[in-house]
Amino acid sequence: MDLYFSPLACSLGSRIALYEAGADARFYRVDSRQKRVVDDGADYLKINPLGLVPALRTEAGDVLTENAAILQFIAARFPEAALAPTDALGRTRMQQWLCFIGMELHKSLFVPLLDEKAPEEVKRYALDKQISRLDYLASHLANREFLLDRFSVADGYLAAVLGWSIATSLELEQWPALTAYLARLRQRPSVAKAWAEERALYAEELERRAKV
Amino acid sequence: MDLYFSPLACSLGSRIALYEAGADARFYRVDSRQKRVVDDGADYLKINPLGLVPALRTEAGDVLTENAAILQFIAARFPEAALAPTDALGRTRMQQWLCFIGMELHKSLFVPLLDEKAPEEVKRYALDKQISRLDYLASHLANREFLLDRFSVADGYLAAVLGWSIATSLELEQWPALTAYLARLRQRPSVAKAWAEERALYAEELERRAKV
Repeated sequence: MDLYFSPLACSLGSRIALYEAGADARFYRVDSRQKRVVDDGADYLKINPLGLVPALRTEAGDVLTENAAILQFIAARFPEAALAPTDALGRTRMQQWLCFIGMELHKSLFVPLLDEKAPEEVKRYALDKQISRLDYLASHLANREFLLDRFSVADGYLAAVLGWSIATSLELEQWPALTAYLARLRQRPSVAKAWAEERALYAEELERRAKV
Repeated sequence: MDLYFSPLACSLGSRIALYEAGADARFYRVDSRQKRVVDDGADYLKINPLGLVPALRTEAGDVLTENAAILQFIAARFPEAALAPTDALGRTRMQQWLCFIGMELHKSLFVPLLDEKAPEEVKRYALDKQISRLDYLASHLANREFLLDRFSVADGYLAAVLGWSIATSLELEQWPALTAYLARLRQRPSVAKAWAEERALYAEELERRAKV
């Protein structure tokens, strides 16, 4: 399988899932500004016309997009890794969390906060509207190790998204349950490895941009 | 099953799915401003702490939230209605569309456009960033009847979301493939019935608000 990613983007969640599964995967870095695959300069818009990472090319050659869909595909492809519940209610609970992370945190809160070009008013609107989502999440995680009863692909996605707070005006320390959750997850081998690798790639990228 | 909904909110998609399935369901209207169940005045935040519709109480008494998760639950609960693909790739393709509708259209485009309290700058940011998503969707739907090869719960969700354009500055007529798709779907009995019922309830609501 081939995963198209950008360092520390939400595709980090897909990388974590692949590591958890012990999948045989190659990783292709995408320059998210130029919409090019870094290694060979290929036009990424031909792989995903939306220009978003991740995209996953399966062993059968199909190209999948949208992080939450890819995460569930990986979980189903490697059932022995037990990365998702398989009963109807458990599957729905995981989908609930994937929706919450994707819609309430990723798109509605962090995209505007991380966007250097977003006007202050846009950032303020996102914060006013969405900050209560972090309260809700923190109260859910206060006495739990994971979002569900055990690790699932939703935790990998959430680890990626919460990690973005450091690049925003959000002080995650306001929610000790969230910082503790993130610290615990970063002790997990798959997360630790993925995070260290992408952090290094991201630092490289910042350095390169600074030189331009 | 009990569906908690607000007229013409994204919960319309869940109602359509229940009609398609011929499910035995009751429908409880939620006042989305007061966060109360209209019939009995119950505190809706005790049902869904996020205050969002839909929520679905299953026959077993579990309360499910997040539209895309509920839609997939309904599809799995009523397999004879064939509301979702059951093969791995087909399931992923449907999840891709559910993510796209939820993240790119619902949350990133329509929530700010529909929000009466959102500053103009916030609406402009949403339009600038997301309008290309409608081009992408229109090119996908240009020669197709449905998002996938046949009707799925994702079409019900998309019908609900595209219907919101009438209350915004978006002129859906710019994308003939989208208006044609929406018109086709509204001919479908489940969609026609759900849409007519909720449109009437919404008109009632507007009238009530105008009197206050």
